[in-house]
Amino acid sequence: MAEPSTQNASQIGIDPTRASEAPLPPSVEMKPAQAIKPGPDGIVRTVPESPLVDIMGGSSRHQINVLDHGFIALVDCMPRLVPQGQTADAAIVQAARVSYGQGTKKLNEDRGLIRYLLRHRHTTPLEMVEVKFHVCMPIFVARQWIRHRTANVNEYSARYSILPDRFYTPNLDQVRKQSKANRQGGEELFRVHDDAQELKTAQEFVNYLDDVEGFYKRYLALTEQGVSREMARIGLPVNMYTEWYWKCDLHNTLRFLALRMDSHAQAEIRVFAEAMLRLIEPLVPATVEAWRDYELGGLHLSRLEVDALTRLAAGSNPDLACDNARERSEWAEKLAKLGFRPA
Amino acid sequence: MAEPSTQNASQIGIDPTRASEAPLPPSVEMKPAQAIKPGPDGIVRTVPESPLVDIMGGSSRHQINVLDHGFIALVDCMPRLVPQGQTADAAIVQAARVSYGQGTKKLNEDRGLIRYLLRHRHTTPLEMVEVKFHVCMPIFVARQWIRHRTANVNEYSARYSILPDRFYTPNLDQVRKQSKANRQGGEELFRVHDDAQELKTAQEFVNYLDDVEGFYKRYLALTEQGVSREMARIGLPVNMYTEWYWKCDLHNTLRFLALRMDSHAQAEIRVFAEAMLRLIEPLVPATVEAWRDYELGGLHLSRLEVDALTRLAAGSNPDLACDNARERSEWAEKLAKLGFRPA
Amino acid sequence: MAEPSTQNASQIGIDPTRASEAPLPPSVEMKPAQAIKPGPDGIVRTVPESPLVDIMGGSSRHQINVLDHGFIALVDCMPRLVPQGQTADAAIVQAARVSYGQGTKKLNEDRGLIRYLLRHRHTTPLEMVEVKFHVCMPIFVARQWIRHRTANVNEYSARYSILPDRFYTPNLDQVRKQSKANRQGGEELFRVHDDAQELKTAQEFVNYLDDVEGFYKRYLALTEQGVSREMARIGLPVNMYTEWYWKCDLHNTLRFLALRMDSHAQAEIRVFAEAMLRLIEPLVPATVEAWRDYELGGLHLSRLEVDALTRLAAGSNPDLACDNARERSEWAEKLAKLGFRPA
Amino acid sequence: MAEPSTQNASQIGIDPTRASEAPLPPSVEMKPAQAIKPGPDGIVRTVPESPLVDIMGGSSRHQINVLDHGFIALVDCMPRLVPQGQTADAAIVQAARVSYGQGTKKLNEDRGLIRYLLRHRHTTPLEMVEVKFHVCMPIFVARQWIRHRTANVNEYSARYSILPDRFYTPNLDQVRKQSKANRQGGEELFRVHDDAQELKTAQEFVNYLDDVEGFYKRYLALTEQGVSREMARIGLPVNMYTEWYWKCDLHNTLRFLALRMDSHAQAEIRVFAEAMLRLIEPLVPATVEAWRDYELGGLHLSRLEVDALTRLAAGSNPDLACDNARERSEWAEKLAKLGFRPA
Repeated sequence: MAEPSTQNASQIGIDPTRASEAPLPPSVEMKPAQAIKPGPDGIVRTVPESPLVDIMGGSSRHQINVLDHGFIALVDCMPRLVPQGQTADAAIVQAARVSYGQGTKKLNEDRGLIRYLLRHRHTTPLEMVEVKFHVCMPIFVARQWIRHRTANVNEYSARYSILPDRFYTPNLDQVRKQSKANRQGGEELFRVHDDAQELKTAQEFVNYLDDVEGFYKRYLALTEQGVSREMARIGLPVNMYTEWYWKCDLHNTLRFLALRMDSHAQAEIRVFAEAMLRLIEPLVPATVEAWRDYELGGLHLSRLEVDALTRLAAGSNPDLACDNARERSEWAEKLAKLGFRPA
Repeated sequence: MAEPSTQNASQIGIDPTRASEAPLPPSVEMKPAQAIKPGPDGIVRTVPESPLVDIMGGSSRHQINVLDHGFIALVDCMPRLVPQGQTADAAIVQAARVSYGQGTKKLNEDRGLIRYLLRHRHTTPLEMVEVKFHVCMPIFVARQWIRHRTANVNEYSARYSILPDRFYTPNLDQVRKQSKANRQGGEELFRVHDDAQELKTAQEFVNYLDDVEGFYKRYLALTEQGVSREMARIGLPVNMYTEWYWKCDLHNTLRFLALRMDSHAQAEIRVFAEAMLRLIEPLVPATVEAWRDYELGGLHLSRLEVDALTRLAAGSNPDLACDNARERSEWAEKLAKLGFRPA
Repeated sequence: MAEPSTQNASQIGIDPTRASEAPLPPSVEMKPAQAIKPGPDGIVRTVPESPLVDIMGGSSRHQINVLDHGFIALVDCMPRLVPQGQTADAAIVQAARVSYGQGTKKLNEDRGLIRYLLRHRHTTPLEMVEVKFHVCMPIFVARQWIRHRTANVNEYSARYSILPDRFYTPNLDQVRKQSKANRQGGEELFRVHDDAQELKTAQEFVNYLDDVEGFYKRYLALTEQGVSREMARIGLPVNMYTEWYWKCDLHNTLRFLALRMDSHAQAEIRVFAEAMLRLIEPLVPATVEAWRDYELGGLHLSRLEVDALTRLAAGSNPDLACDNARERSEWAEKLAKLGFRPA
Repeated sequence: MAEPSTQNASQIGIDPTRASEAPLPPSVEMKPAQAIKPGPDGIVRTVPESPLVDIMGGSSRHQINVLDHGFIALVDCMPRLVPQGQTADAAIVQAARVSYGQGTKKLNEDRGLIRYLLRHRHTTPLEMVEVKFHVCMPIFVARQWIRHRTANVNEYSARYSILPDRFYTPNLDQVRKQSKANRQGGEELFRVHDDAQELKTAQEFVNYLDDVEGFYKRYLALTEQGVSREMARIGLPVNMYTEWYWKCDLHNTLRFLALRMDSHAQAEIRVFAEAMLRLIEPLVPATVEAWRDYELGGLHLSRLEVDALTRLAAGSNPDLACDNARERSEWAEKLAKLGFRPA
């Protein structure tokens, strides 16, 4: 027990005598294989138990081209270095085990733990993985994307720099009609091969974009005549491409994907989300597998729907106790998807 | 101390016998004047000591028009009801006092406490105040605004609804030149009254915006011909107006103002920030006064600048120990602002 | 179209001539009844269409006592003033309608819209409502609570102030055993009325807390002898009560409730969550109703479970295509809850 | 210009024909040296221009021991792999340059750019760097630490696991007195070598902690007798050690350091902050250098202080136009620090 030290009273703090000890086993799940003696700086450096390998396989960039001039490229991730034979899933397991205080387990137990986390929405361990992308996308896509507030973003600035001449223009056979059922959506294509009137409209749409794009020359000329870049660009349309670095933890990246891969999302952002998932999947295969099983491919039943299904199980009418037409039709869809016939 | 109760074992939880007591004085700073008996719902409702008044004076909206078609309107705040004679500053003081555990003080002590908080950047009590605005601004302004991630935002959706015909067009005498010193800025105006060439350029800029605005008719026509709203709008320019509800706590609102009232911010967002400050000031007068004194009107000196000033105080050369031209010129500006002459 | 103005060139900004116009109809859903002339300050103040009433009914505090010395009290909310006959649900509807651009609808349509938002997880409009609580809870509860990062918090500081003598001590018949199935839980009570051994253990637990509580006198004495408060308190246990103001938007408050009302949450925080829900429900009745239906009372099926249920609908074996014992037993529970018999 | 394609209409999306092109130069600052042909998966992988090296020098953990049983260990960072001869500063420069759209510059220009960012509080590029620590600290330190809300945290759970027997106990000559001037602080030490009465008090404090620590045995025994871990731990004191993984971007890490290295922070968290800075500095040397110059070693003057200094420069009285005693004494301190004599 603590005695007054005979040397000069020292403030609490970093204890130089302890620096020469081997590091305390910091927690059960981490057994530093070889404790190196602390350097003269008092820092104890630990050699990893097994060799670390670059999860990106030595390349600096994994890029998928999207739309006519866009792309999404994975440019870094955390962890970047993982023990041979492992993936970034390991960082999630490590974080979950500090909570649960369990020792290191085998790989199939790791997969089971990850599935457990996803199933029970224990999402904080997923925040221990970070992904970073370089993206080039139309401004109207960027405007939807930026609503995800947890990410770190650095965007190309049209106040500082001239915007390059890149506009998103769909092909004639990619022009979408306004949905009648869904005020927000536009999934059905114009029948440009079969219907002269529809071809004409689609052509007018594409001409409209071409004419808008023509303004790029006037934008350039105005900046050359001395109009400030920040003003000159205000006449440019939202189908111009912009680009940014976007960095986000895995939990919030998966939320982004859940919302932006949804059938209600605009098609032009869906394709970026789908490409993002392809780039992420090799980094955290067990997590993405579990996420597909529980989130993407899952089905949520409301209390009323649970009641209705329970009645069905009892041989009664699985009617929804609700007079809202929309809610009833959503229930009918779910029942059909499950293969049950409504009463 | 705790005996096994003779009645049935009950789980922990809300204690019905305590509900009939007068509420505990929750902390020193809150003395409920009249404790009403708990209702049959077990909730104790407290009558305020002094009458509460609407800090917005009974109106539902305080609006300032900004730019040619925009506005910013205060539509709600928290606290909305305050004791007569007080302002929303009181909620900041109340939160600070729970930290410091002090009793209620007089108004001039409240002002002193608020100044102390601002001076020492104890900003969490400022988060206890919330402001909510309805804003109509050009898309390029909205794109800068949305980078402030702490706010809650609901924006008008051009996927659901037709955009109204509102474009931002500066007057000829508001067109700004590209700054040479500052790549980002554009503060100097075209001399449209004195210089024929500059008038011509400014006129070309305004014509360009007028021509872009002409595309609005084609946008409308395309939606009438069945092109989905989400596609038809992609040719519209970033000087179109959009609108949103924006709700934010006071600490982050003041950070927004510090960044967007800065001379480096684009003029078109500065005018919104200035209007926002005018709408906030009557709600939290002591806080805004302190913020003007410490943040807006303050001056930050770097370590090198502190060293230089110390040398000046000692009668030596206040030269910056740094060979970066930009840093040196910033120091010269600060010295000049303070009224000292460089060596 | 813009002409060079004959008067002096003025920078862009707040347009004094527009201040005298009636305010623009800000958006379809808001029809200011009576536009007051702008004051000399250029601010247009709008009188509400219908009288505003205090949603807290004129009281300043709605408190429920929780545990032996704790409480949770609603002390403010946003909106605080609502049109007569309405609730804070109206602020959610208003925000949703600015996105959807629809006109004002009747109350039952509002309820339908809120149900739609909750069902489809369009949660940003819920962020337009803010609630503020004064809470007194044991430190170990506060430690779980603070993990919800979106809230604004000001806590009583034991560095500044002496902690009051308030310790949480459960009764003998509230002591819980370690669960065997669930490493985290402790739901089963000691049988203090039937089993002498279990009574003895429960008594030892309560004695242990009493003895710990006895250290409070030594804490006090040490501070009186000049030991700094920030040091003296470090020997105090985590069942001491602390208190704070906690302010959060409704979306994140409901997430807090979903996690902390869950059967896996510790009993001592569950009772605070349940009391919080009782305090919120009268403010946003339609939202809480929908939340109970879709979140609290809902059931989530994984892709594998959807597949199994589909097989059941087709008359086959609803076995889960998965060899994880835990996942299989969770599915068995869900099937049982729905009233289906496993194969 | 878009023609109706002769093949079947395809939805927009990832363009397989573009996948075979060399990747677009994504932006001026990134010149992929060798574009590898896209794999069969359509992903273009880029070989880095110069060899990448592990910024942690091949070790998996850099640990500094803190207090009697605590530690802080850097366990990962992003970027982890950097071009030979560079540091993680490069990721900040890269992000800043995408905003400014400039080409790659030399190292001393990079340092200049970083200094510019820090000086003008352009902090978003700093968010592109991420650091991850494993920390073992007393609960009362953890409670202060967790108030920084931007970080990702996974903490050891005393609901799942038995807490190890680790208590923070200062030595006799580390016991601090309550400050009289500063209600919050406690900087002065008990004079245990010179003053019998002060030695006695310090001894009583240490005895108190020893006695509290004695309860650990009863905690253990109770869990062995079947009391749930989540209950048994509630009598344990806040000087027990807990541990967590803490991951945060560099901008918010530096804010943490600014607040927790401040002289007003409690000594026990200051030592963790100082150790954290030592671990970070080799990763981002230019950024830490600039941060020391502008933040840590800087001085902020209020508007009133600027006015007073201006009067001093003009040969007048540098008195503060303010009657708040605290503000005046803070100004006197600053003047003295700068080497000016008050009037």
